[in-house]
Amino acid sequence: MQKFAFLGLAIFFTLVLCLSINAAQPQPPLWQVYQQSLKTAKYVDLTHTITPNIPVWSGFGTSKFEPTINPKTLQPYNYKKDGFEATHYDLSTDQLGTQLDPPAHWNPEYPAIDELPATFAVRPLVVIPIQDKVAQDPNYHLTVKDIQAWERRHGKILEGSVVFVRSDWSKEWPNPELATRTKFPGVSLDALKFLHLQRHILFHGHEPLDTDSTPTLEGEAWLLHNGYTQAEGVANLDRVPETGALVTIGYPKFKGGLGGYARYIAICPPNWSYGVSVGQIPESPLQKADKSLHWNKQLGVRVR
Amino acid sequence: MQKFAFLGLAIFFTLVLCLSINAAQPQPPLWQVYQQSLKTAKYVDLTHTITPNIPVWSGFGTSKFEPTINPKTLQPYNYKKDGFEATHYDLSTDQLGTQLDPPAHWNPEYPAIDELPATFAVRPLVVIPIQDKVAQDPNYHLTVKDIQAWERRHGKILEGSVVFVRSDWSKEWPNPELATRTKFPGVSLDALKFLHLQRHILFHGHEPLDTDSTPTLEGEAWLLHNGYTQAEGVANLDRVPETGALVTIGYPKFKGGLGGYARYIAICPPNWSYGVSVGQIPESPLQKADKSLHWNKQLGVRVR
Repeated sequence: MQKFAFLGLAIFFTLVLCLSINAAQPQPPLWQVYQQSLKTAKYVDLTHTITPNIPVWSGFGTSKFEPTINPKTLQPYNYKKDGFEATHYDLSTDQLGTQLDPPAHWNPEYPAIDELPATFAVRPLVVIPIQDKVAQDPNYHLTVKDIQAWERRHGKILEGSVVFVRSDWSKEWPNPELATRTKFPGVSLDALKFLHLQRHILFHGHEPLDTDSTPTLEGEAWLLHNGYTQAEGVANLDRVPETGALVTIGYPKFKGGLGGYARYIAICPPNWSYGVSVGQIPESPLQKADKSLHWNKQLGVRVR
Repeated sequence: MQKFAFLGLAIFFTLVLCLSINAAQPQPPLWQVYQQSLKTAKYVDLTHTITPNIPVWSGFGTSKFEPTINPKTLQPYNYKKDGFEATHYDLSTDQLGTQLDPPAHWNPEYPAIDELPATFAVRPLVVIPIQDKVAQDPNYHLTVKDIQAWERRHGKILEGSVVFVRSDWSKEWPNPELATRTKFPGVSLDALKFLHLQRHILFHGHEPLDTDSTPTLEGEAWLLHNGYTQAEGVANLDRVPETGALVTIGYPKFKGGLGGYARYIAICPPNWSYGVSVGQIPESPLQKADKSLHWNKQLGVRVR
């Protein structure tokens, strides 16, 4: 009898345990945000892939990728022999690819990349289109009027937003000749001042590798000497909405770093025509590729 | 009279214009999410700052930072002379600092870092604590029972979550001796299989630089040979809640890259005791520092 009572108790507690795990516990508020809004959103990468051959200012020299070397044998690690590989990067500059410029790039009194606050994480994304005007004039620069026209269509720009300027300049990427042009779509100093002083945005970003085509780079000078950050080399702005998306901001945290290697991903509404949603493609586990990754000496990168 | 009519019309249209901009237009849904939930959240950085002297496996050799050189003069760019500086990185490995390992680190048939989907952006964050057990046994490894204990407290782990294991191992960071230890807190293979096969998480992460202390690294082998990703070198897990936070995932997009230089930022509830909220500290413009940034030859980095 005692044995049955014990068994009964054991079953009872097991049931309570199972129920307490599986019962529809109310989700914490931020997890509800994920389940209801972020999971079904469409994700669009706004980042260029970095290779040794992408457009970069000639004053920075060239960068090189190599397989990581075993310091004992001086041979590169190899999947077959060692079971793994890794990559050695010789990067001549942290002004490479899609970037986030901290003000210390020009002014050592302001923060370096590792000193930006953790609140540089996810923000409302405003995309202001100037590609039609750039098609007429490759040296067109965003004006205050262009910003006001955006606001008439979509409402006032939210404080703390990230504002990216769509010019379609990056459609020729990775043509290295892009970095040598003296005429390219820019952002006027007046527009930068309006965005920061009147609208109090977090930062703006543009597709080219410089803010404007003036001889003194007057826009970048004003931004970085006054403690503002900016994004450069932003991609795929033709695949995100002008309003209503968010953007995640990621970048490696190199001590005293002055730029570099940023990652921007747009989080667009679920009915948006570009991008992928969580669960739409295999992510864990990821899908096997048809071809194996291997080092290509001529290109200086691993390819399939 | 005509003049007054014209003036009246002009005033009328100006008013309409102003109202149409400033009227409380309904915000797009994802911007409401930002305004209501993300803006007031507390942001906690889970990333180590990368320097040439942080703990790293001796088999990868050392890395070096230098100021970027002007290829014409062979002199480093300098704030006083050139108006800007930049950084040259010689990184012996992409397995450095806080990492996101793509499966191609061990298996070339699976994706490299630039091939991960854009949905690796923001996820629910689960933090499973084992630091009390690690205090008794520095070689303690997370078990399925530890995960089940977490679920009894907080409910079933959400599909697609990021699961970080708190061991407090990183409290000794950046002591280089950390990378030489053969006993350190790990994650058992059974726990990894439970998280992926039963709970279908996106990826797990741990504070040490390896997944477990077995001679064959059996956990990492299982993960990467089966197409899963993992985070290593995660920091500050003592400053985030066990449940209810989100985490942003950022990393540079090097072609064919096999690890590296990731950024994780936890987005915690507004009443959480650690972290900063948007608008709580100056971010645009950022605050001037007391001391100027300058190159320190001995440390091999820019410091203040």
